[in-house]
Amino acid sequence: MDSATMFETRSIEERIREIRLVVFDFDGVFTDNMVYVFEDGREAVRCFRGDGIGLQRLEQRGIATLIISTETNPVVSARSRKLGIRCLQGCKDKRAALETSVQEMGLSLTQVAFVGNDINDLPCLMCVMLPIVVQDAHPDVIPHALYQTKVRGGQGAVREICDLFERVLAPPQRE
Amino acid sequence: MDSATMFETRSIEERIREIRLVVFDFDGVFTDNMVYVFEDGREAVRCFRGDGIGLQRLEQRGIATLIISTETNPVVSARSRKLGIRCLQGCKDKRAALETSVQEMGLSLTQVAFVGNDINDLPCLMCVMLPIVVQDAHPDVIPHALYQTKVRGGQGAVREICDLFERVLAPPQRE
Amino acid sequence: MDSATMFETRSIEERIREIRLVVFDFDGVFTDNMVYVFEDGREAVRCFRGDGIGLQRLEQRGIATLIISTETNPVVSARSRKLGIRCLQGCKDKRAALETSVQEMGLSLTQVAFVGNDINDLPCLMCVMLPIVVQDAHPDVIPHALYQTKVRGGQGAVREICDLFERVLAPPQRE
Amino acid sequence: MDSATMFETRSIEERIREIRLVVFDFDGVFTDNMVYVFEDGREAVRCFRGDGIGLQRLEQRGIATLIISTETNPVVSARSRKLGIRCLQGCKDKRAALETSVQEMGLSLTQVAFVGNDINDLPCLMCVMLPIVVQDAHPDVIPHALYQTKVRGGQGAVREICDLFERVLAPPQRE
Repeated sequence: MDSATMFETRSIEERIREIRLVVFDFDGVFTDNMVYVFEDGREAVRCFRGDGIGLQRLEQRGIATLIISTETNPVVSARSRKLGIRCLQGCKDKRAALETSVQEMGLSLTQVAFVGNDINDLPCLMCVMLPIVVQDAHPDVIPHALYQTKVRGGQGAVREICDLFERVLAPPQRE
Repeated sequence: MDSATMFETRSIEERIREIRLVVFDFDGVFTDNMVYVFEDGREAVRCFRGDGIGLQRLEQRGIATLIISTETNPVVSARSRKLGIRCLQGCKDKRAALETSVQEMGLSLTQVAFVGNDINDLPCLMCVMLPIVVQDAHPDVIPHALYQTKVRGGQGAVREICDLFERVLAPPQRE
Repeated sequence: MDSATMFETRSIEERIREIRLVVFDFDGVFTDNMVYVFEDGREAVRCFRGDGIGLQRLEQRGIATLIISTETNPVVSARSRKLGIRCLQGCKDKRAALETSVQEMGLSLTQVAFVGNDINDLPCLMCVMLPIVVQDAHPDVIPHALYQTKVRGGQGAVREICDLFERVLAPPQRE
Repeated sequence: MDSATMFETRSIEERIREIRLVVFDFDGVFTDNMVYVFEDGREAVRCFRGDGIGLQRLEQRGIATLIISTETNPVVSARSRKLGIRCLQGCKDKRAALETSVQEMGLSLTQVAFVGNDINDLPCLMCVMLPIVVQDAHPDVIPHALYQTKVRGGQGAVREICDLFERVLAPPQRE
């Protein structure tokens, strides 16, 4: 049973107010799902500078963040270090990694949002309170999300999610 | 005589069911046909992360894959190593390389799909059962293909082809 | 009170004629707000070659230029060195850095244009004579600008601003 | 007086048949006018793989090619070496370099096409038989060209020009 069905009466806004942890897939979420391949086999990825400001503001509201990645890749370590986000790599079973982390933090899956883009994110998307996908997610994944970002992965998707939380948690005041 | 004419009564779905080997050109198929050039002459290319999942599923169905490239380039070796695909480089005559490989594998050209993007792929496209081109293939090549991917080379074209095979070979069940 | 309100009766053209200094944010203005992340944590950015010609012509008219950046990053130093622009980095408080620079140059904020793209540019945008944002600036910032470039950051935005100044200061003659 | 006026009665096809030399600006023509800037100040550019096939075919028809670049940059050397094109760099006065080259080759400017993208290409564009600009050339330059490529610089513009020559010089036969 999907989270979408499990808690179906709750609006996205209500769900956001419950969230204590936002978990992100890396490739396709922090990046455009592209990889730059060099002659010696080393890789590089392209990320969005504006994600940093959004993540800082999320943290200031006491919402934890975490990256869970299937592969072990130095570029993921490099980017998460720069952003100051905790990062779990080499997770063949992403859902197991997610559940362990949530438990260790003393949280429940009803307090978690997960952001993904491809079919290997399905188990995680289907067990959390707020499943989110990026604009250019794989078509098989989109139906399992409750929110699809307006911008593409790596082009401000993470920032858009942070801004959405910001808007719900602290609606702008009329001056 | 084109493959399109040779087997003209067969649908794409029927052809896919015959295929035992998918052969890919590299530049413009796994990449956006761009090359990053550095001061020391070294090069890099940009590939789509999602291709990996698709190729794995193709392999699980017992369909072999192969990259045939005109040039010899370390970035092609690097990417094919990462994807776990066999790779033939420095093939001035791509069609000869294709025919030799097919023969060595004990297959016939009627069991082969070829994916290309430019005029040097024409001889290969014209001799296989299922000639495929990417969305942004050279205009002179497109008429010789039976399937043109909806997305551009390097932006999910390989994955789209894998997903197409998946859909034909194992249509989704109604739940 | 915004600069837009402060000097509201003046047109953009009138404001441009007052400007002696154009101050630029770096990321998102000289770049597309993306960062290329390598395995060893080093970074790269993508800039527009055509910015150089525009900045040269601005300088030839006696208009000074300056980059103010929050972060300290070798890529900013590298690019500003190549363009021959002075550059202040590690400015946690961009507005303080701006005001100090303006004072040191014997200018007033009414002679300054500021080009930004994100919410950390707001204090600077709100205190200068001519606040400018790029096409793809964060939505919260756009209302505070008097000019929004037609092209995106890193894709000719700096050049467009230089060309705008050129057109206002030396309108093309009929031949 | 512009070349466009000088020879105004000739069609583009007639002009192409006169051309013995095609001269290219580098940045914005072979590239998308972007530069990748690394922490140590080194640079990289992005080029279109398909340009190589086009240039080979041009050469096979006995049409010479040449790159003339204002700046001296190792990436230009690297790319022209790979393409096997002769390359003049550090040409502060591009038109002088063009005229010298044309004279040394025993040609006249009426046998030359020039491909550019920005205002520093104007003197060259205005003195040759066939002035060409890329799709995304600077607006001040476009009126001085007789042909504007359908695709953008660095995304197949060079190939499009080669294909245009191919079509005019050897129109496809009906089978």
